[in-house]
Amino acid sequence: MTTTTRPESSFASTLPGRYYYDPALYALEQERIFSQMWVCVGRAEQLLEPGAYQVVTVGQESVIVVRNRSNELQAFLNVCRHRGARVCTEASGQLKGSIQCRYHAWTYGLDGRLLGAPNVLNDEQFDRTQFGLLSVALTVWEGTIWLNLSDNPSSLDDQLRTTISGRFGSYEPFLRYGVGQLKVGKTITYEVNSNWKLIIENFMECYHCGPMHPELCDLLPGYRNGAVYSDGDSAMLADGVEAFTVTGKASRPHLPGLLPEDLRRYYGIELLPNMLLNLFHDHVLIHTLYPQAPNHTRIVCDWLFDPVVMQDSEFDPMDAVNIFDLVNRQDWEVCQWTQQGMTSKAYKNGGIYVPNERHIRGLCDFVLAKLGE
Amino acid sequence: MTTTTRPESSFASTLPGRYYYDPALYALEQERIFSQMWVCVGRAEQLLEPGAYQVVTVGQESVIVVRNRSNELQAFLNVCRHRGARVCTEASGQLKGSIQCRYHAWTYGLDGRLLGAPNVLNDEQFDRTQFGLLSVALTVWEGTIWLNLSDNPSSLDDQLRTTISGRFGSYEPFLRYGVGQLKVGKTITYEVNSNWKLIIENFMECYHCGPMHPELCDLLPGYRNGAVYSDGDSAMLADGVEAFTVTGKASRPHLPGLLPEDLRRYYGIELLPNMLLNLFHDHVLIHTLYPQAPNHTRIVCDWLFDPVVMQDSEFDPMDAVNIFDLVNRQDWEVCQWTQQGMTSKAYKNGGIYVPNERHIRGLCDFVLAKLGE
Amino acid sequence: MTTTTRPESSFASTLPGRYYYDPALYALEQERIFSQMWVCVGRAEQLLEPGAYQVVTVGQESVIVVRNRSNELQAFLNVCRHRGARVCTEASGQLKGSIQCRYHAWTYGLDGRLLGAPNVLNDEQFDRTQFGLLSVALTVWEGTIWLNLSDNPSSLDDQLRTTISGRFGSYEPFLRYGVGQLKVGKTITYEVNSNWKLIIENFMECYHCGPMHPELCDLLPGYRNGAVYSDGDSAMLADGVEAFTVTGKASRPHLPGLLPEDLRRYYGIELLPNMLLNLFHDHVLIHTLYPQAPNHTRIVCDWLFDPVVMQDSEFDPMDAVNIFDLVNRQDWEVCQWTQQGMTSKAYKNGGIYVPNERHIRGLCDFVLAKLGE
Repeated sequence: MTTTTRPESSFASTLPGRYYYDPALYALEQERIFSQMWVCVGRAEQLLEPGAYQVVTVGQESVIVVRNRSNELQAFLNVCRHRGARVCTEASGQLKGSIQCRYHAWTYGLDGRLLGAPNVLNDEQFDRTQFGLLSVALTVWEGTIWLNLSDNPSSLDDQLRTTISGRFGSYEPFLRYGVGQLKVGKTITYEVNSNWKLIIENFMECYHCGPMHPELCDLLPGYRNGAVYSDGDSAMLADGVEAFTVTGKASRPHLPGLLPEDLRRYYGIELLPNMLLNLFHDHVLIHTLYPQAPNHTRIVCDWLFDPVVMQDSEFDPMDAVNIFDLVNRQDWEVCQWTQQGMTSKAYKNGGIYVPNERHIRGLCDFVLAKLGE
Repeated sequence: MTTTTRPESSFASTLPGRYYYDPALYALEQERIFSQMWVCVGRAEQLLEPGAYQVVTVGQESVIVVRNRSNELQAFLNVCRHRGARVCTEASGQLKGSIQCRYHAWTYGLDGRLLGAPNVLNDEQFDRTQFGLLSVALTVWEGTIWLNLSDNPSSLDDQLRTTISGRFGSYEPFLRYGVGQLKVGKTITYEVNSNWKLIIENFMECYHCGPMHPELCDLLPGYRNGAVYSDGDSAMLADGVEAFTVTGKASRPHLPGLLPEDLRRYYGIELLPNMLLNLFHDHVLIHTLYPQAPNHTRIVCDWLFDPVVMQDSEFDPMDAVNIFDLVNRQDWEVCQWTQQGMTSKAYKNGGIYVPNERHIRGLCDFVLAKLGE
Repeated sequence: MTTTTRPESSFASTLPGRYYYDPALYALEQERIFSQMWVCVGRAEQLLEPGAYQVVTVGQESVIVVRNRSNELQAFLNVCRHRGARVCTEASGQLKGSIQCRYHAWTYGLDGRLLGAPNVLNDEQFDRTQFGLLSVALTVWEGTIWLNLSDNPSSLDDQLRTTISGRFGSYEPFLRYGVGQLKVGKTITYEVNSNWKLIIENFMECYHCGPMHPELCDLLPGYRNGAVYSDGDSAMLADGVEAFTVTGKASRPHLPGLLPEDLRRYYGIELLPNMLLNLFHDHVLIHTLYPQAPNHTRIVCDWLFDPVVMQDSEFDPMDAVNIFDLVNRQDWEVCQWTQQGMTSKAYKNGGIYVPNERHIRGLCDFVLAKLGE
């Protein structure tokens, strides 16, 4: 006989299943998390010249990120103020000093101000200052672009610094990686049929590493028994392993700012709501999560390297890429299996976190607090 | 910082974004507009013989249009009165004097009366007159078939005449085109990912013609500056242009009823809720809109010509077809971009119509009045 | 003019159209019918050895059916009690004595008990007896597996016996077919865009057989006039027809337990909510219905034969399979046409059952009673 009551246990409980599939709860997350917090939308380094732009998606919004004439990045809702057409219809490109809507040729400056509108700009009833593109708050942090859709954004530093410092004991060790100076050597985009929270939960524990990631555990054997790392801790490369690569061999020097004590460590850090940061001695990997639906998340992985090293004619990122690409695919598969279980009456009241997953409960509490529940 | 308040302006405002994507508002439009008004469903000329039929869709209903034994067109809901099966399962065809449901062989006359029902027709408890196909009001106007799903249809003439007369100053100039005598030379069907109203709004203004339609403006230069035509007005062919064709050359005589004053004019007229009528001196183009979803409209374009001219062995409609097919594709692209902007918070309160788009506000008011809002 | 009032008639009325397409009513059916009653999920014969399993779907639940070490079949919700992952991710297979979740290697016995959970099984705060796989009630009846998701299942015998006995006058004649001893000779799966009730309604009457199934009527001519069979009745093979095959020729002996009076009869029996049982003198065909959506049903057909006959090297099931496969396809086509009519205003109040369909009203009343309406 089936019973759906969650058994008593002193272990922490997960969120109830509905938090992973209910469209109404997903919409509430979009409103209260992804439209209120700073959200990462990728690397800044590809927008070098004034007029260079990318179109990104934050929550339900299409946003233009563009370098203006003062060489600063700005962001605008990608909606013409006249009749609502998409202003930029390509994913990226180079503008010639202005942004023009193709529908009626309304023209905006790279700073968003309305510069031209055929037949009406000089109409005395028309106040052009009221019709600039609607701006979106933007901050560049360590080479990554963060946007905030809220009317009164808090500080991005407040959002990130506590997590970073808590992980390392202070902020300084993180700075040694110089993430802002690195460049993308390889990007892979994954479409995962799983709720975004299951992907972060999966990242937050290595209780699954033994069963799911034998290759990873060969390189980082501390994960084999599901260890959890507390403040200041990290995973150490196995004896005889030189680097986090498919072969275990090092094929490039360490990042220039690191100290000897950093060289054999791996840090995996989640920066809510949507960045997963992986620090190795010779490269950095950033996962950026873009929720698409309650059961669908797009994940963009950028592998970053020292640009000096990348100039070497024999530079090849794939020994680093291939090992984490393998780990990623193992993780996405199990996240998808887990997504499928969320709708069962067996998970109506959720499951449990065992002691070395207990910290994931913090993610649940974060979400519940944001949703006001 | 983003603000979503619509700025003050003496310009007319568009509908709020939700009118273009909300399924509940779309359903209300289907009920109060497309199920109450007369709706165009194409040309009558292909149903020549008694028994010839087509299956068309009005709102959510499948409807059989058939020529009866008295040589009149009739329309019926395509649902057997017995168990609800589709009676006609092909898009068109030729019936042999009756309409038979394949499920249980219930048989209806071409006038919809129930003629046969195995085992029950003579049952004294069964009143066959209560089980005819449910009829739908039908009127043929200028060779086009209009259906009305309401229980108490108003007059189609009332629905159309004011618009036509308002456009020409009187009804007589329109009659000179003899639209009812023309025949289809070419049909193209488009699937457009846009709300039906955006497509009509696009048709109602030429403020976009300069930016979007350079080829059109070469033929009709008055559109280059976004002119709007008031009662009695029309667009004039450019000097040196003989006809509205890709080459600007005339390849067929003018329609027989026209006066010299008609020969260089183009009229574009919207006949709500779903016909766009384009009158040229040597052909007529009719757009028929079939809303499929809040963000999807099927558009059937019929290019009509004088049947005498069509009998010429060298008749070729493509010089006329290709120019408006190009214009259509330019328009559908921008309607799709606009549809994508409707869900943004930037368009929560809508956008604006500039002075020479101001008349489009009449469409908004028409929709709001029909929806009772 | 269209009218949507259902005409007065002393004939029985069908369910209103919304019962065939409304997602809320479908969800209620899933809850009150498919999650409360015993539901057939296929044949038991393929799970021969301990550890053999299949994954089946009942309502919205994925369920593991497995033969345990005591050689009994058991069923469990396919959801790990830890974090909710699917435990079995293949459709079927052979387990080696236990069921292991791949995510964190939690391991369950074939009886569902939690046997292993890395790092926590010996945690004194952890009561492993509370974390076994959630069991689902299972009964094998005549070689078919039936599951019941409710917390307090009634007896399967109660659910089936009255229907069977009512059909034959007593239970004994049915037993002569020895359905439990037969084996599957051929399986075909159909995806039908129709509500599950329309498929059962179609099965319940042969008023449609004349128009839709000429080949069937050649073999069973009593169906040509739409006869309905009451208690104890069956359809008889036509004179000169030896068996229900495409040729009408017999190609195998009759089932061993039958009496001479059984040999020329066909019984079609619906065992609600989801089995359709077809008894012939030399084979049995079982349709199992799996509702997927209001307008989509998966139907698995298993043709069963005497295993002694199947050992013949020349055994070929296709003369029996092909005739009913043809009948099936004819039925699915018309069920799909009927589904399309359900949303019309013509069917808002439903249609009618003629006198020899009148018994189908019992299905309607069964559904309404289950839904509490």
